[in-house]
Amino acid sequence: VHVSSLSADAVELGQYRHYMQKEIFEQPQALASTLELIAGGGSISPQLFGSQAADVFGGVRRVLVLACGTSYHAGLVARYWLESVAKVPCTVEIASEYRYRDSVPDPDTLVVVISQSGETADTLAALKHAKSLGMTRTLAICNVPESAIVREAALRFITRAGPEIGVASTKAFTTQLAALALLTLALAKLAGRLPEAEEGRYLIALRHLPVAVQKVLELEPQIEAWAQRFAAKHHALFLGRGRHWPIAMEGALKLKEISYIHAEAYAAGELKHGPLALVDRDMPVIAIAPADELLEKLKSNLQEVRARGGELYVFADAGSEIAESEGVHILPMPEHYGMLSPVLHVVSLQLLSYHAALVKGTDVDKPRNLAKSVTVE
Amino acid sequence: VHVSSLSADAVELGQYRHYMQKEIFEQPQALASTLELIAGGGSISPQLFGSQAADVFGGVRRVLVLACGTSYHAGLVARYWLESVAKVPCTVEIASEYRYRDSVPDPDTLVVVISQSGETADTLAALKHAKSLGMTRTLAICNVPESAIVREAALRFITRAGPEIGVASTKAFTTQLAALALLTLALAKLAGRLPEAEEGRYLIALRHLPVAVQKVLELEPQIEAWAQRFAAKHHALFLGRGRHWPIAMEGALKLKEISYIHAEAYAAGELKHGPLALVDRDMPVIAIAPADELLEKLKSNLQEVRARGGELYVFADAGSEIAESEGVHILPMPEHYGMLSPVLHVVSLQLLSYHAALVKGTDVDKPRNLAKSVTVE
Repeated sequence: VHVSSLSADAVELGQYRHYMQKEIFEQPQALASTLELIAGGGSISPQLFGSQAADVFGGVRRVLVLACGTSYHAGLVARYWLESVAKVPCTVEIASEYRYRDSVPDPDTLVVVISQSGETADTLAALKHAKSLGMTRTLAICNVPESAIVREAALRFITRAGPEIGVASTKAFTTQLAALALLTLALAKLAGRLPEAEEGRYLIALRHLPVAVQKVLELEPQIEAWAQRFAAKHHALFLGRGRHWPIAMEGALKLKEISYIHAEAYAAGELKHGPLALVDRDMPVIAIAPADELLEKLKSNLQEVRARGGELYVFADAGSEIAESEGVHILPMPEHYGMLSPVLHVVSLQLLSYHAALVKGTDVDKPRNLAKSVTVE
Repeated sequence: VHVSSLSADAVELGQYRHYMQKEIFEQPQALASTLELIAGGGSISPQLFGSQAADVFGGVRRVLVLACGTSYHAGLVARYWLESVAKVPCTVEIASEYRYRDSVPDPDTLVVVISQSGETADTLAALKHAKSLGMTRTLAICNVPESAIVREAALRFITRAGPEIGVASTKAFTTQLAALALLTLALAKLAGRLPEAEEGRYLIALRHLPVAVQKVLELEPQIEAWAQRFAAKHHALFLGRGRHWPIAMEGALKLKEISYIHAEAYAAGELKHGPLALVDRDMPVIAIAPADELLEKLKSNLQEVRARGGELYVFADAGSEIAESEGVHILPMPEHYGMLSPVLHVVSLQLLSYHAALVKGTDVDKPRNLAKSVTVE
């Protein structure tokens, strides 16, 4: 007899209307559990990825992330982190593309596969394909310990999001980001690129992350009001730059999945190379505008949108200093969160798509045409 | 006094209604001019990229392509070619992202910048940024010989598309692909990975390319009929796999730019990870279905679309063997064209967006909000 280790809490809705809502609000706890090993006195170490991690990581010269859907977006965020902090070149590829194309294998590359279920067919096949090409340094980041992908990889990091039941992934994504932040710091430390003082600052930011996410969740009433305004639209454009570009992609995917609004994301710098032609009063533009070094560039992109009559919904930071005006709605996030800022910003976009779907009356937890785990090609 | 070298033919409309139409139909000639150096007895050689090319290419271990918009899509196609034929790892990045992020420079990487005008601000800045990081092996692929990007690069390949006046790039894109095919073969040959018999086959295919494109242009009446059917739609999904995924991206961009239809492209394997939720009778799906090794996979993606009520417009090859049925429209391309197949398939998508724009009555050559050359950020 197999006794399920799931507690009743984990699979009952309780006070929530939908599993997706419940899972969005479980994120502080999911992050705290996932980051438990560095709580209190814990520090960054390859051991976070298993006892053989130091061996596998030693001599790694590149990282290749293979994943699908939301997990692919987590990988795209990690690319910015890995190249900036650990100075390890990183490539991120859709698993279904990688498995079927001719690629150039490299045994010094760490292959990182990401999948909530650990059963995603294309990701599993991509991992096997990489191994068949001689790439033996492999790491699985999954939410299910006994899954096929975990069994197939040399190293594993199990996110502790708990069971995710809503088809649209939320807490799995943010805990994947937490895992990838740890990976970035572990590789940086191994390479001698993480001075102690810096490590200390990252540890503080990671330990504080659950509280920081909790503060974003408290923005729900304002985000709900925004969702009311644009749920009637048929299109949306999400803009971001740098490490927030993949967050724009994830925000657009969430809106697609559960509200059936045709949302698309662009790196803001690409706006003038095509998508600006689409912008008019029927195409709301959602912008992720953290108070980082790209903010001034983004502001000029937003002016272009506004000049064409597009209505702007801007997720700013406390220090972003963008003024509300006609057609420009601003929602300041509680704080600017540096490298980990994508974790906070995606939570607000999850809430936005959830409430847009509520307004539209779709089946939030089981959107049409989609399955929770894509275990076939 | 500067005497323009442009002939009257190059800038007059003649028999055409729009510059875009004229430029689409000029592609056989543009390709023939661009490929002139390998016409007749010419063969593949680094010299195609200038007298110092052998020096610059020697010891190249990776390729990094930096570009924006349509030129970025050309780079994405080249990635499949370079890794498959030349076995050189390749990364392709949007110039506005690369220039502002922390990346890991590598002096053994060939930096390839692509820009029709040679003046694209972000691409020029990205090239300068790469050079400032010590990456001195640089190649510009541009359509304007005296342009800033050409002057900034160590090597140059000038496409001979002639002046491109329509804002939506067409002949510049296909001649960029021709240049990138030559680059792929030159790097393969230098690395000893291009056996003579294979080189001969590629040369035949390249020399025949203008004729092959001419045959695609003859499909205009059928494509025009398709455009009539879906110009009334507000959305479109473009699907492709492998080297045709970037062609799906380019097809979607063209439709966006000039018909203002919100078209988005996906790697077909990602369909189940989100975009399938959007598919219903109002979301036509355009699929690129060449008779290659990915065809069976794509067919199963198409069945998923059909099962959800999506209307399919399939650009197949003569040998793709997909049957017409209710809601499944098939347009067989004249021939299957192997590695260079993307060049043929994009021409059919250019015609599709041109005719959709005609039906909608937009200003084809000067779409709203867009400029021909994006010379500011």
